[in-house]
Amino acid sequence: MSATLRHGVIREVGLRDGLQSIQTIISTERKCEWLRDAVALGQREIEVGSFVPPKLLPQMADTAEVLTYAKTLPGLFVSALVPNLKGAERALEGGADLMILPASASRAHSLANLRKTPDEVVAEFARIRAVRDASGRKTVLEGGVGTAFGCTLQGEVKADDVLRLMQGLLDAGADRVSLADTVGYADPDAVSRLFDQALKVAGDKLWCGHFHDTRGLALANVLAALKLGIARFDASLAGIGGCPHAPGASGNASTEDLAYMLESMGIDTGIDVEALLRLRAKVADWLQGESTYGSLWRAGLPKTFRSARVAAHG
Amino acid sequence: MSATLRHGVIREVGLRDGLQSIQTIISTERKCEWLRDAVALGQREIEVGSFVPPKLLPQMADTAEVLTYAKTLPGLFVSALVPNLKGAERALEGGADLMILPASASRAHSLANLRKTPDEVVAEFARIRAVRDASGRKTVLEGGVGTAFGCTLQGEVKADDVLRLMQGLLDAGADRVSLADTVGYADPDAVSRLFDQALKVAGDKLWCGHFHDTRGLALANVLAALKLGIARFDASLAGIGGCPHAPGASGNASTEDLAYMLESMGIDTGIDVEALLRLRAKVADWLQGESTYGSLWRAGLPKTFRSARVAAHG
Repeated sequence: MSATLRHGVIREVGLRDGLQSIQTIISTERKCEWLRDAVALGQREIEVGSFVPPKLLPQMADTAEVLTYAKTLPGLFVSALVPNLKGAERALEGGADLMILPASASRAHSLANLRKTPDEVVAEFARIRAVRDASGRKTVLEGGVGTAFGCTLQGEVKADDVLRLMQGLLDAGADRVSLADTVGYADPDAVSRLFDQALKVAGDKLWCGHFHDTRGLALANVLAALKLGIARFDASLAGIGGCPHAPGASGNASTEDLAYMLESMGIDTGIDVEALLRLRAKVADWLQGESTYGSLWRAGLPKTFRSARVAAHG
Repeated sequence: MSATLRHGVIREVGLRDGLQSIQTIISTERKCEWLRDAVALGQREIEVGSFVPPKLLPQMADTAEVLTYAKTLPGLFVSALVPNLKGAERALEGGADLMILPASASRAHSLANLRKTPDEVVAEFARIRAVRDASGRKTVLEGGVGTAFGCTLQGEVKADDVLRLMQGLLDAGADRVSLADTVGYADPDAVSRLFDQALKVAGDKLWCGHFHDTRGLALANVLAALKLGIARFDASLAGIGGCPHAPGASGNASTEDLAYMLESMGIDTGIDVEALLRLRAKVADWLQGESTYGSLWRAGLPKTFRSARVAAHG
């Protein structure tokens, strides 16, 4: 399993997937401080928020403002989540570099979460593509295929349903697609099988894996996807987030543990892991009373640790 | 990364590596209850304790008694850790099925932990082998090569030192050898490289990997070793244990998360994971005030979970 990849990208989703799942609402100022620090320590792709109605997710009410600030940071590729056409219009207005529309391969989850069937989500996606094209913006359009490994509502999600939805999103004009284990049901073998099939559908348009650490397998799942050449993963600082259907369960793969794993494997993420641990401490301090996750922060880096970039040239 | 293995063994080390690293001393009666429950739910290999002086590790003072009880449990392959010849004599007397002598590839760690150089440990191993052979016992003799991926004292541990120590243990009569990431420095790429080299030295005498989850990579490291055909892993219920050099850091891979991963991948461990979670809850209750780890216990099994045995026949 020698790494053949030399570079990997961690897309930070703590400000979106993380913060939307917890009670504490952190101020716009602090979100901007988080972004500033993250960029300074080498993070280059960040999902800054979600354009959902503030009544549903007050934590995300300032997404437009945060997006505007993020766009002032040099070298940052700024993503926003959009649940529908209205959200997409706001992301386009704000000049997001990428907008991601979550779709759900589980019909039950799709109806519960988006109040649309998977086919209706694809139709909405096509409308978003048309509006994006008409806007003249270069905003990249990603279709995120969620509940790809199973669903807490309906249980099994068939690979055929996942791949059909992915094909639908591509046909509707997705520039990129990704696979998400929304509820932490994936295992490394399932990841290998589904990503292998998805690569046949999407080729290099399949560019990101999103793994929840609900049952402790997020990094093992990343490893399985890495082996197929997937080089971009969502992760959340301090592993914040969670799953509304599993109280107390952890959220995404923690950014710091994932960055440490990739760098240790000689995969350059551009991230200064020591500085990332300092940012983690700061954000954890803002989130007192909330559960945070991950392991590296407790033990610190090994004496032998060298970042992939230093190791390559040292 | 489709699993080719159909069967895997988790060797429970919670009663040894776990309990020796924490303050709480649980009674002999509770240790026996733990063993009884573990066997009832399908665990077939357990390291029951360590034959060290009670002054050093009072948690292990009842190892002989626990070993005697363990030997009454049908179908259980009972291991004990022995730091030296004296310990080995006690393990032989107790009728252990296997005794493991820990060696350390790091000279600094070997001197600090065992007060012997690696070469002196090999010499002690040869004496143990002679005594084992003279005893007429069938006790299997395992050499555990520790600090194989680095050391908190000396930092880097060279692969050459690891492989030389492994060869020394084999030459001194080891029936089996194993590799241990004692301090949680390993990453999946390092695991692939070192296990690949070690297999060339030891062949199928290399039968076990021991990964600490100090920095969150234990299960990813297991996955890397699995890919090379390693099918036996140490793990600790509730991830108890730790590292004296990293306060608050977690211990071994947690048995329940590892069993869940393997079973999900279609690798039959013989373990009833739901019953294992009940045992985890019981033991965690005995250990109130101590840190416990792992993720599965918080979220529970996925709706879609089927054990490998059921999946194969269902």
